[in-house]
Amino acid sequence: MPHPPTGFAPGLSLASARVIADAALAKGRALNLAPLTVVVLDQAAQPKLVLREDGASLMRVEIATGKAFGCMALGFGGREMARRSAKMPGFMNALSDLCGGRAVPVPGGVLVRDEQGVVLGAVGISGDASDQDEVCAVAGIEAVGLAADTGDPQ
Amino acid sequence: MPHPPTGFAPGLSLASARVIADAALAKGRALNLAPLTVVVLDQAAQPKLVLREDGASLMRVEIATGKAFGCMALGFGGREMARRSAKMPGFMNALSDLCGGRAVPVPGGVLVRDEQGVVLGAVGISGDASDQDEVCAVAGIEAVGLAADTGDPQ
Amino acid sequence: MPHPPTGFAPGLSLASARVIADAALAKGRALNLAPLTVVVLDQAAQPKLVLREDGASLMRVEIATGKAFGCMALGFGGREMARRSAKMPGFMNALSDLCGGRAVPVPGGVLVRDEQGVVLGAVGISGDASDQDEVCAVAGIEAVGLAADTGDPQ
Amino acid sequence: MPHPPTGFAPGLSLASARVIADAALAKGRALNLAPLTVVVLDQAAQPKLVLREDGASLMRVEIATGKAFGCMALGFGGREMARRSAKMPGFMNALSDLCGGRAVPVPGGVLVRDEQGVVLGAVGISGDASDQDEVCAVAGIEAVGLAADTGDPQ
Repeated sequence: MPHPPTGFAPGLSLASARVIADAALAKGRALNLAPLTVVVLDQAAQPKLVLREDGASLMRVEIATGKAFGCMALGFGGREMARRSAKMPGFMNALSDLCGGRAVPVPGGVLVRDEQGVVLGAVGISGDASDQDEVCAVAGIEAVGLAADTGDPQ
Repeated sequence: MPHPPTGFAPGLSLASARVIADAALAKGRALNLAPLTVVVLDQAAQPKLVLREDGASLMRVEIATGKAFGCMALGFGGREMARRSAKMPGFMNALSDLCGGRAVPVPGGVLVRDEQGVVLGAVGISGDASDQDEVCAVAGIEAVGLAADTGDPQ
Repeated sequence: MPHPPTGFAPGLSLASARVIADAALAKGRALNLAPLTVVVLDQAAQPKLVLREDGASLMRVEIATGKAFGCMALGFGGREMARRSAKMPGFMNALSDLCGGRAVPVPGGVLVRDEQGVVLGAVGISGDASDQDEVCAVAGIEAVGLAADTGDPQ
Repeated sequence: MPHPPTGFAPGLSLASARVIADAALAKGRALNLAPLTVVVLDQAAQPKLVLREDGASLMRVEIATGKAFGCMALGFGGREMARRSAKMPGFMNALSDLCGGRAVPVPGGVLVRDEQGVVLGAVGISGDASDQDEVCAVAGIEAVGLAADTGDPQ
């Protein structure tokens, strides 16, 4: 039975977020990665889902959230965030301060777009090397039939 | 395939957190409650799991986290937090400031204990009336065979 | 000429926000109110528009933003926020801390809904008495043909 | 009908801020830039006006505010802020922390001076490349007949 309507339309459903997260974690297990934390944000950059695997160290939720939030803040994926951090460290340090640290400029933050390019939210993963984190985020997003924008040209 | 061991022992497994959350949300749907957000914290008060149902307003993750974190902060359930807030508002306001608001003193924050009484973590739920939120948290904790400490005498 | 597409869909257009704000300020002038500050937030609770009239004191933008953000945080208008603040001061103090003060529980924060009840954003006004601030917010929202949810039953 | 006098003298009128912002956004559309956010601060570094174009990503108001606030904080334009960030990163990072991130040291923050050189406020724009953001800020300030101080020698 669905809950009563509230009028808040989040862009990405919890059902989709679950598929994304489960596929991302399955990818991590298939690759034998370190314990992962996956965060899915909606169009308002609010968390829809957080899952933190057993054995993860303490700040993984904040780091994964920061990867995803940074993408929402500037409008491009984590690889472009990393490039800008290298070129414009003063700007990216200020951005980090502006949003309470929630703009972590490394791969593993990935925008979720629909077929028209509309941003539905973002996925952030932390736990293994950033490149591996990103592989899992992309696998998750593709499992639900949406487009993963990592910040690199397609 | 399990990930490599890291030495971080969380107290509450992600598998258990999933059972708790799914049972809590099922209870909310059975009662036709407003959209719920459920947060499960481990022994270190770090999130293991967050699920936010479609239609929830914006700060529900923070509120649910605050209910659960407050329980971990002082070591008793949300009903005792509410009583202390009524009796000692100055102290509870200071506690709220100390932890950045993450000590929300209302029902719906519930400690998770094992059969020896060891605190394994806490569950926080927000979205409907506090009493209803608590009913769902208790249903979730009991679904995994652990003891729910709401802050009222057993 | 429109700008290139980015994929970010905010719910409430800047054009609509301008109509809302201009009508709200016109109402304030017609009523000879103190200088007003009007804030319009979109579906992600991000500012679309802020206008602060000459002579306004210093924190009016933050107060008006807090009125509007509080509505988005809990999902109801400022009058219900005020009622809950009276009944549950500990909870509302904690909410204020949780969101850095951006949950000001008084009239003058009004949800903007479309004809289906979907929340498109919120308007916050500060400068005169809260009831007068609210009158102007409602006038603004109605000028653009949307529904104003003040937190009182319709 | 004007509102009653309050004694707060803002330096830059809301009417002037509107002319600045509308001219800045018109320039951005003429150049086919990405969606822009424009912020106009008064002599007390309080916002007079914020306009955020449709499609802008989430943190653009904070970034534009930070460009303008940084200019007010140290008393020179964004290009000098950028030079100091390169030469004195430790100082500029500390400044950023001091003001909660509101000192974003890049072009696009521009001081507004009258014919005697008195600082009336500052304009910050974010959304496209920093150089382009600055072009629009200058166009806005000149549209109201005031002097734009970008931080470069005139």
